[in-house]
Amino acid sequence: MSKGKKKPSLAVVGATGAVGTVMLSILSERKDVWGEIRLIASARSAGKKLVCRGEELTVVALSPEAFDGIDVAMFDVPDEISAKWAPIAVSRGAIVVDNSGAFRMDPKVPLVVPEVNPKAAKKRPKGIISNPNCTTMSMIVAMGALHKKFELKELVVASYQAASGTGQPGIDGLRDQISKIAGSNAGEATSDVRKFIKDTSPFPAPLALNVIPWAGSLSEAGYTSEELKVRNESRKILGMPKLKVSATCVRVPVLTTHSLAVHATFKNVVTRKAAQRILEKAAGVILLDDPENKKFPTPNDVVGTDPTWVGRVRQSLDDKKSIDLFLCGDNLRKGAALNTAQIGELLAVELTK
Amino acid sequence: MSKGKKKPSLAVVGATGAVGTVMLSILSERKDVWGEIRLIASARSAGKKLVCRGEELTVVALSPEAFDGIDVAMFDVPDEISAKWAPIAVSRGAIVVDNSGAFRMDPKVPLVVPEVNPKAAKKRPKGIISNPNCTTMSMIVAMGALHKKFELKELVVASYQAASGTGQPGIDGLRDQISKIAGSNAGEATSDVRKFIKDTSPFPAPLALNVIPWAGSLSEAGYTSEELKVRNESRKILGMPKLKVSATCVRVPVLTTHSLAVHATFKNVVTRKAAQRILEKAAGVILLDDPENKKFPTPNDVVGTDPTWVGRVRQSLDDKKSIDLFLCGDNLRKGAALNTAQIGELLAVELTK
Repeated sequence: MSKGKKKPSLAVVGATGAVGTVMLSILSERKDVWGEIRLIASARSAGKKLVCRGEELTVVALSPEAFDGIDVAMFDVPDEISAKWAPIAVSRGAIVVDNSGAFRMDPKVPLVVPEVNPKAAKKRPKGIISNPNCTTMSMIVAMGALHKKFELKELVVASYQAASGTGQPGIDGLRDQISKIAGSNAGEATSDVRKFIKDTSPFPAPLALNVIPWAGSLSEAGYTSEELKVRNESRKILGMPKLKVSATCVRVPVLTTHSLAVHATFKNVVTRKAAQRILEKAAGVILLDDPENKKFPTPNDVVGTDPTWVGRVRQSLDDKKSIDLFLCGDNLRKGAALNTAQIGELLAVELTK
Repeated sequence: MSKGKKKPSLAVVGATGAVGTVMLSILSERKDVWGEIRLIASARSAGKKLVCRGEELTVVALSPEAFDGIDVAMFDVPDEISAKWAPIAVSRGAIVVDNSGAFRMDPKVPLVVPEVNPKAAKKRPKGIISNPNCTTMSMIVAMGALHKKFELKELVVASYQAASGTGQPGIDGLRDQISKIAGSNAGEATSDVRKFIKDTSPFPAPLALNVIPWAGSLSEAGYTSEELKVRNESRKILGMPKLKVSATCVRVPVLTTHSLAVHATFKNVVTRKAAQRILEKAAGVILLDDPENKKFPTPNDVVGTDPTWVGRVRQSLDDKKSIDLFLCGDNLRKGAALNTAQIGELLAVELTK
């Protein structure tokens, strides 16, 4: 592993995928902390040429040797690929930052959001750091800032999740449904779109002109895997294993950017102004909360941006220690590639000390 | 007022509007409890012919005399028209069932949902009965049934409200936006629809491929009028003036049928099975809750039907007295015309006793 002044080397595993593509543009936009950047993908994509930091790079096939000389490896691949290959990368000397679900709840793997728990990245007995699920990420930067000041007790969350949370098939499926509906009389009297679309999307019901209370797979006690990720990952990132969290995850006909309605209860009184002051100053958060002028975030305003946008901050009328708010975050940027890049930057600083 | 065996007479005020139109078809579908049905609208619509119960009826202009001989008058008109004309109808001998917001919070006017508080309809010192707001209505039949068994303590609600909640301009606006987007490249990489649509809809942001955390007007402490209706009307219908209620109301790109994610806390333990058993038997409720087979309600399944559909029932993992659920109700039927018709039927029974 290179120490001292030399810039560390980076591998991007899954460089040709949806998140990998966003990662290459994020690496090109941000402060350049990396020496060599090596692009790794499946054998099928090997030899492909991609541009990063203005340079053309040739994709190499995933193999143990592909990690030789690499200091940090960012994985944007399915769970089973990460589960197999992250330990191999570690055995070749790399620190892995993994964006899959394979290691997130492993007690020996830290789950890191640099604005919330950067120190957790330092203790990584397996040489692996996990990146949270995009729905948890949509709220955790803002909730972490409020927690530091007011001490969280409970979160009740309802999500408005974008189609791209299921990757490119979700985006294609929604766009396809919308073209079909626009060319038909669907919803003339009702919103009965079923008869107009033969659905090939990854969703369990039509998504155009509809909402679907389902994301992920069936898990414990009727909750979906996505709903339990919101609970379990929030607890781990905040270091609060007993935090009460209830989530209902709902897919909405938006292409990219997840939104959440959050009802948060704290140990201390939280006025609207006090919450707004914390959110205004919080790193990675933009407060857009001017209801007099109908200013609040919507996915359409937020898509393509890095921060978590927060609006509609209200102190509950029935509990001075509770607030309601609405927030939006781009699920492909901070929700995936950006946070991975930020964790990588923490490691780059550590490695060049 | 006609007593005895004679069927009571009914006036439909606002017969040519969006809810009035649904009302005429509901009156044609349900058990025929009415003698004369008189259609009343603005002078502009007088003389228009509409069909109800298979008969052609001529619309008469709104005037004090239009209520002569009428036992029950159903009002589906804006707040200010109801505020002025409901007392005039009462002075002419009619009992008014009003679907506007004009009298809902008046302590001398009962707010009635026949499945929940039918007896409240009997005490009407002003001769007026109010019909709840459509968002409250979407959940109150189901929550009322659960409350009877488990005793409600707190409701946290996030809504997914349809465009038709703002009437015909909302429906037209959303349909227009969807056609424009389908013919463009909007959302090719992002969901930036703003540049493709010149918005003439009643919404404060684009609604196609977006969600908007705003419904109604700005009210108290940053809450919207719609959010406070959910709180205040739920309290009044359930007869619980201190019930804790927090709501965040969000408009979604659905034409008709409101959905709500509800986190409800009770005085007593509520298992998933126990909640399901109550909902299965509750009048006006359909339980569609089979996550193993991905069965849960969506607006697209529910539109055009009368009941409240409930699914995704889960006991909170962190509190045995809390449940999470997702429900859908057609905002133009039970949310407006149907409940008004049901209140009218209670009165018809009373008047023919």
